[in-house]
Amino acid sequence: MQEMAVSTKMNGVDVDRLFETIDAIKQVPRLADFRFRLQNRWINGGLNRSTINNYYGAGKDNQREEPFVLDADEPPVLLGGDSAPNPVEYLMHALVACVTTSLIYHAAAKGIKLQEVETRAEGEIDLHGFLGLDDGVRRGYKHIQIKFRIKADVPDEELEELCRLGPTYSPVFDSITRGVNVDVALDR
Amino acid sequence: MQEMAVSTKMNGVDVDRLFETIDAIKQVPRLADFRFRLQNRWINGGLNRSTINNYYGAGKDNQREEPFVLDADEPPVLLGGDSAPNPVEYLMHALVACVTTSLIYHAAAKGIKLQEVETRAEGEIDLHGFLGLDDGVRRGYKHIQIKFRIKADVPDEELEELCRLGPTYSPVFDSITRGVNVDVALDR
Repeated sequence: MQEMAVSTKMNGVDVDRLFETIDAIKQVPRLADFRFRLQNRWINGGLNRSTINNYYGAGKDNQREEPFVLDADEPPVLLGGDSAPNPVEYLMHALVACVTTSLIYHAAAKGIKLQEVETRAEGEIDLHGFLGLDDGVRRGYKHIQIKFRIKADVPDEELEELCRLGPTYSPVFDSITRGVNVDVALDR
Repeated sequence: MQEMAVSTKMNGVDVDRLFETIDAIKQVPRLADFRFRLQNRWINGGLNRSTINNYYGAGKDNQREEPFVLDADEPPVLLGGDSAPNPVEYLMHALVACVTTSLIYHAAAKGIKLQEVETRAEGEIDLHGFLGLDDGVRRGYKHIQIKFRIKADVPDEELEELCRLGPTYSPVFDSITRGVNVDVALDR
């Protein structure tokens, strides 16, 4: 007779391991220190390529077998070749993906089963900023709007509360809404 | 005899079209209004998928022939399948790609030829924030460091100034360092 592997998964998240991770961090706080890294190389015009591989976390350096490679390009109206999403679209992906994952993990920890999560997002940019045509116009997003459709095993009146889990715990949401100190230096 | 297509490209950027774009925006300011969009669908656990296709800009809706599809996942120590970069890595890609493109375009507009641009970036996160273990620890990046290696047709003493072009004009750098208002709502 085959033995069944027992693991308590909720929303695809191994909650036993999640609580083990939390216990481990309570014992050894520095296990929670993560450092994410990337290298990028300019190709031509609006096209450049990031390579993402190792990161520090859980007390050690971690290496993927194969690096992830991400291109960024610009659409034709922004003078690019449109071979990949552009950087501000990647920013929105980072944001929506993170809010979604944060919702999924924290719902799992609370024992709430989700059936479907779908999101639409839109962000506005006025190019007067990027082009340096008006210093009163910011370079970045003026505003980003995210709309969630959630199907979950909770009463309808608890959906709003569930929807708040993502923004409450998401590292990218926190980074983008509260701002991060970014240091840019020349490497000689 | 074949006629040569004449275009003035610098760093792969069509600077004639760049200045035409700037002139067009000076005539009709609303051409500078852009709206970027995406849809995302949760797959399982830490895996979700964004579809990026149309955007509004230059006075009209623009559609790609094929949508871009981006997965986000988490590495094993964060209980994912490691099939794609995670959201905070995407955030760093968005940032570095945007600072690079902004440098390239603004150098092109100034007539400065770049030969090579390579970047390394690292960002620190303390998971006590995401896990909700310590409300004094922010969820997002504590700090991001970007190091540029630039080879360009400028004297060495002008490299620092050149290096500042990216952060000065980058929409993602502005979004991340100054923060963006993000509205999250439930779509019923």
